[in-house]
Amino acid sequence: MRYILFERLEGRDSAPALGRIATGASEIEVFDLPAVEAARGVLALIDREHAGDPAPLSGERVMIDAVRPLAPVPRPARNIFCVGKNYFDHAEEFAGSGFDSSAAQGAVPKAPIVFSKLPECVTPFDAPIPVDADITTAIDYEAELAVIIGKGGRGIAKAEALGHVWGYTIVNDVTARDLQGKHSQWLIGKSQDGFCPMGPVALAADAFDLETARIRCWVNDELRQDATMQQLIFDIPTLIETISRGITLMPGDVIATGTPAGVGIGFKPPKYLAPGDSVRIEVDGIGVLENPVVAYRAAENAA
Amino acid sequence: MRYILFERLEGRDSAPALGRIATGASEIEVFDLPAVEAARGVLALIDREHAGDPAPLSGERVMIDAVRPLAPVPRPARNIFCVGKNYFDHAEEFAGSGFDSSAAQGAVPKAPIVFSKLPECVTPFDAPIPVDADITTAIDYEAELAVIIGKGGRGIAKAEALGHVWGYTIVNDVTARDLQGKHSQWLIGKSQDGFCPMGPVALAADAFDLETARIRCWVNDELRQDATMQQLIFDIPTLIETISRGITLMPGDVIATGTPAGVGIGFKPPKYLAPGDSVRIEVDGIGVLENPVVAYRAAENAA
Repeated sequence: MRYILFERLEGRDSAPALGRIATGASEIEVFDLPAVEAARGVLALIDREHAGDPAPLSGERVMIDAVRPLAPVPRPARNIFCVGKNYFDHAEEFAGSGFDSSAAQGAVPKAPIVFSKLPECVTPFDAPIPVDADITTAIDYEAELAVIIGKGGRGIAKAEALGHVWGYTIVNDVTARDLQGKHSQWLIGKSQDGFCPMGPVALAADAFDLETARIRCWVNDELRQDATMQQLIFDIPTLIETISRGITLMPGDVIATGTPAGVGIGFKPPKYLAPGDSVRIEVDGIGVLENPVVAYRAAENAA
Repeated sequence: MRYILFERLEGRDSAPALGRIATGASEIEVFDLPAVEAARGVLALIDREHAGDPAPLSGERVMIDAVRPLAPVPRPARNIFCVGKNYFDHAEEFAGSGFDSSAAQGAVPKAPIVFSKLPECVTPFDAPIPVDADITTAIDYEAELAVIIGKGGRGIAKAEALGHVWGYTIVNDVTARDLQGKHSQWLIGKSQDGFCPMGPVALAADAFDLETARIRCWVNDELRQDATMQQLIFDIPTLIETISRGITLMPGDVIATGTPAGVGIGFKPPKYLAPGDSVRIEVDGIGVLENPVVAYRAAENAA
């Protein structure tokens, strides 16, 4: 089952609504939730599951082409956990780029590199990725599978870790390479406003095949990234075990698992994003996250 | 004026209450706020100021020695912004420690190093700093002045920056040096549960003298850190300008400004914290933040 937070394209009810889409279906079954609760996206469903009071369906159905998707976790409760250099080929390409402040420790990390993105970076499908040329001249895409935690905990063992996952979504871990290098720690380069497109849906964990799922990213019509989750250096159970050793994970936490080879910085010369570009990320079973790149002023006007 | 979130040591009313303490006074004037609002600490005061509806006083007064302080921002709305290597002498001592993943870029940073700590790390005065020997054998203190943002914004110029500051508090940016080095990015080493003692009070910006204020830190009775804000490599206006260039700062954001020389890793051999130690940080005009170091099991039992 896939879950979607959305706005209706037409009609008088413009409040965000939350629904689910059965596999292969073209209709959204809408949940019957107070507007404030629905607006939290799948965090509302997770909280209700914990409370033993699952969200009821309203009976209303909406065609998926009649809605605008919002991010499934539109405002995470704290910064998103992100993992750096977590695919072998990408670790090599980034270490050779000159922007990798961790390169002195070797191209391939010996332990997961974990940093964060501010929750307010999150934007939905089709929202502009803003480029402010006064701030960065090296803006890059990173297609990533993101984990949404359902059951929190501390000291979660690898063998139990997937039982803590509520579902999966797609994020574009947009990065200003120049700021990432300049500030050494990556928060600023990774957390500029609008730097975390997410969605368009969240897929329930039991419906996702981690063994075979493939992630691909196109810039305009050029395929840039193409990998499977089998190529992760640190797999999802390892990431959950590592983070939760001394940090209590919470329901609704989002962990972006890292990006494969093929980001702009990996090309010689680098292929940075520019206004007019479009970044399209597809993960099997989840869907397609597509966002246009827009000069900052235009993005501001569109907001 | 200083502001304090607190619990009463005696009496039937155990809900957190919010109050203010005039300079030199020994009594807290308690605000008249709903319990849920008061429990947000100074975030409630900031929101009310923005709404043009300042928190009213209840008329009740409580002696400060009859309360247990809570952290003035007990749960920041997103991860705390933290600045690394922001005092010259500390930059040198840390770069020479072997745990500094940014050392390849030189001891003294050319731009602010900004990372984050999870909001759930925040603990109050006297809360145990937990040491789990299974996770870290290199736990260190970092005495820091923290800025609390009152007025948010993007693209805040240096000259305007102090006008965006609501007030100041003290944090101990507790760090697991081994995890900080191992994971290259610092989130995990800095965000272990209980790693951000804060308080005991927040001081209004207009009552703080940045020109002369001195920060000192003792471990047990040994003075380890002693500096003034004049020794910051990147001063507070520069930090606010840097972070807000492409990131919208929000009211209630907390920025920990970095720690002076004298942390445990700077000694040869290093002086890490051990159960039984006590860390005491004093900033002129704000107060004293003191926390015991406790073995993890004991901390758990105390929770």
